[in-house]
Amino acid sequence: MQPSFIKELQNIVGEQYTLTDRESLAVYGYDSTPEIESLPGAVLLPGTAGEVVQIMRLCHGAGVTVTPRGSGTNLSGGSLSGGGVVVQTSRLNRLLEIDEENLTATMEPGLITSALHREVESRGLFYPPDPGSMNISTMGGNVAENSGGLRGLKYGVTADYVMGLEAVLADGQLLRSGGKVVKDVAGYSLNPLLVSSEGTLGFFTGITVKLIPKPQGKITMLAHFPVLQDAALAVSAIIAAKVIPATLEFLDKVTIKCVEDYAHVGLPLDVDAVLLIEVDGHPVVIAEEAAAVAEICKKHRCSFFQTAKDADEALKLAAARRTALSALARLKPTTILEDATVPRSCIAAMLKVIQDSARKHNVTIGTFGHAGDGNLHPTCLTDERDTDEIKRAHAAFEEIFDAAISMGGTITGEHGVGLAKKKYLPKLVGESGIRVMRGIKNAFDPKGILNPGKIF
Amino acid sequence: MQPSFIKELQNIVGEQYTLTDRESLAVYGYDSTPEIESLPGAVLLPGTAGEVVQIMRLCHGAGVTVTPRGSGTNLSGGSLSGGGVVVQTSRLNRLLEIDEENLTATMEPGLITSALHREVESRGLFYPPDPGSMNISTMGGNVAENSGGLRGLKYGVTADYVMGLEAVLADGQLLRSGGKVVKDVAGYSLNPLLVSSEGTLGFFTGITVKLIPKPQGKITMLAHFPVLQDAALAVSAIIAAKVIPATLEFLDKVTIKCVEDYAHVGLPLDVDAVLLIEVDGHPVVIAEEAAAVAEICKKHRCSFFQTAKDADEALKLAAARRTALSALARLKPTTILEDATVPRSCIAAMLKVIQDSARKHNVTIGTFGHAGDGNLHPTCLTDERDTDEIKRAHAAFEEIFDAAISMGGTITGEHGVGLAKKKYLPKLVGESGIRVMRGIKNAFDPKGILNPGKIF
Repeated sequence: MQPSFIKELQNIVGEQYTLTDRESLAVYGYDSTPEIESLPGAVLLPGTAGEVVQIMRLCHGAGVTVTPRGSGTNLSGGSLSGGGVVVQTSRLNRLLEIDEENLTATMEPGLITSALHREVESRGLFYPPDPGSMNISTMGGNVAENSGGLRGLKYGVTADYVMGLEAVLADGQLLRSGGKVVKDVAGYSLNPLLVSSEGTLGFFTGITVKLIPKPQGKITMLAHFPVLQDAALAVSAIIAAKVIPATLEFLDKVTIKCVEDYAHVGLPLDVDAVLLIEVDGHPVVIAEEAAAVAEICKKHRCSFFQTAKDADEALKLAAARRTALSALARLKPTTILEDATVPRSCIAAMLKVIQDSARKHNVTIGTFGHAGDGNLHPTCLTDERDTDEIKRAHAAFEEIFDAAISMGGTITGEHGVGLAKKKYLPKLVGESGIRVMRGIKNAFDPKGILNPGKIF
Repeated sequence: MQPSFIKELQNIVGEQYTLTDRESLAVYGYDSTPEIESLPGAVLLPGTAGEVVQIMRLCHGAGVTVTPRGSGTNLSGGSLSGGGVVVQTSRLNRLLEIDEENLTATMEPGLITSALHREVESRGLFYPPDPGSMNISTMGGNVAENSGGLRGLKYGVTADYVMGLEAVLADGQLLRSGGKVVKDVAGYSLNPLLVSSEGTLGFFTGITVKLIPKPQGKITMLAHFPVLQDAALAVSAIIAAKVIPATLEFLDKVTIKCVEDYAHVGLPLDVDAVLLIEVDGHPVVIAEEAAAVAEICKKHRCSFFQTAKDADEALKLAAARRTALSALARLKPTTILEDATVPRSCIAAMLKVIQDSARKHNVTIGTFGHAGDGNLHPTCLTDERDTDEIKRAHAAFEEIFDAAISMGGTITGEHGVGLAKKKYLPKLVGESGIRVMRGIKNAFDPKGILNPGKIF
């Protein structure tokens, strides 16, 4: 990057917020995705939306690419720059307003997800999306990736809560979409298009989300299943009984062993699967729902069923699921965490495909995830220096993605396409899908300045 | 339209399903929008998605425009053709599947909305969107317009339920988007973009919607408010008390009088406003919520509060709201029904703007609508032959739209832009909004074949 150009960037955000030293660039040269690295040319930490506008105008004019970045928890390489400018949102982190009359919260993109949770819950309100990385992830990143979490089954994902966006387009123009109105059909729906656009259509500078009343109570349950198939059947049976738990999570045998070794939460090592189930809402309703869940799990031959007696015990039961990824990640240097997603009814079939592929390609895959959503996280424990094993891991995942597509599922339920899944996208959306997506990109960013090389 | 071209159309759908006689064309020359008419060149009634593909290919090649049409209940001129081919969906009306395990329903676009309601409710399931026209509107039209209804406050609108779409693009290519997976972030979100695209991006041939368990119970309440402002305050207070009713509807004095003259449901003629409130869900919960609603209404000086004793009485109370439009429409030959929408907290201010504008421009406007959503229906009773009054009506609505925009609201909450609101859209979405919307249109339909002249 030319010194004169760096100077112009410094003029916008200030010298101390323009990082170009080798160490800083190295820090921004990777995100949470294994196997992919890419040093940026410079990293900027703007303090106002106005500075973002100026950065975009300058880079657009100079033909320099811009990659928005939050906390870098991206799992598909979406926050890697390919040599251009990274614009990081940590200084744009203010919670601007909680509007209790309209049930909305408005914030800058760098606000940490769990900070929003804490603030709204202290007022008796609730922002449901809770991605695994919520203690470090930013709301801007959550919106760009349409993050899910453990409460998606009942409450949906980030897209279901975004009401208004302010975005700086590639040429520096401001786009305002939606706001605090709960219904708006004036022209094309730009909000849901910007949500999950992975930083390729606009740089978010303002976000307004919908809040809901905080559920009055919650019951947390854990069930052990000696036979995998029984756990999958129990998931379907719970939904078929018209109980929609807030959380309906699954751990397989590999994951259970890792979690127990790591966290010592008292999981059994002789069962095929564990389900973590949480129902929330009015105390009377959740008591009925919990009773129904217990009965269904017992009917499906669970060997053990526990209902948390209090909040502490609930946290302990939920810890089994919350620590799954960390526990798995300890075993080997490289963790490839995937998120193939299928219709809920195909969970059992999908688990079989994952196990068969792991065996066939001789790789270790632990699977956990959002069973109620059909959104599993098959996680391959490997070492990126072992090129042969990595090759086999990718062969296994290719089979898993193909199976997901053939079941009417998708290659990614919550992590995005980014760089990591580009080659699978055409299989899923077809020639016509790619064509219109490229056309949409062109409508927003004809010069291809914003987060280049992602998605397609 | 050339006879040779008509012949080619007949070869696709059959002679009996190709309407070109003067009477038929006249029938399709208007929809539910006042003041706008436009004769099509031909009307086609295809029987399969394959025929739709062939129609699109033929018209695309010949440069003939195609306007999709359901039951023609559109309120913004969105189903008028401007002289091209109208493709009507009445023969594509099959409910293809209700999948109780995945909680989805899949259908063709011509299925009548209330037919879907009946079928899913008979299985203990629920499809919440219930636009006023649900007994004649089609699901394809609901998706194209992102229809709302009386249950939007708690349950959202059509966009919140569309999981999968099959659409024929302008050139005849098939696009499949989403499906039965509840989470999908593979590339740009095309589903919500196609929803509310008003027939300009694709012709829907298949629709998959999300279902939820049917609420176990419902309590219907009616409250009379001598003072308008008190009714508006009660609306805000109910939400602030963290009660989210399924329905929270409003009628003003003009509407009350018309409804009473028409339906004789026992409404008082000496009050400023009536609220219809329905809470639904678990019996214990709704009993508590209903008690809270009653207390809030009384605290806000309602002069009368009634809770329906049974389903019959509930229907009677709801009839006041359900008949509002028909009742108003009897008074004068032309009814201009608008849907300016504001943040919920601005309802009282918006009602004042509507009353002031009506008085200033000497027109009769009755207002009813979805108070909980901030989505009012100011309805001007006029006569399109009275050009002076029509001019004054439009002047009043221009003020109302400007006020909605200035309050952070929108020019249309559920009826779409179509032809009727094109001139207001740039004010709302700005130059950058129009530019990206045009770009999106171009990505899907570069020749501008599909439903020309709508939105922008």
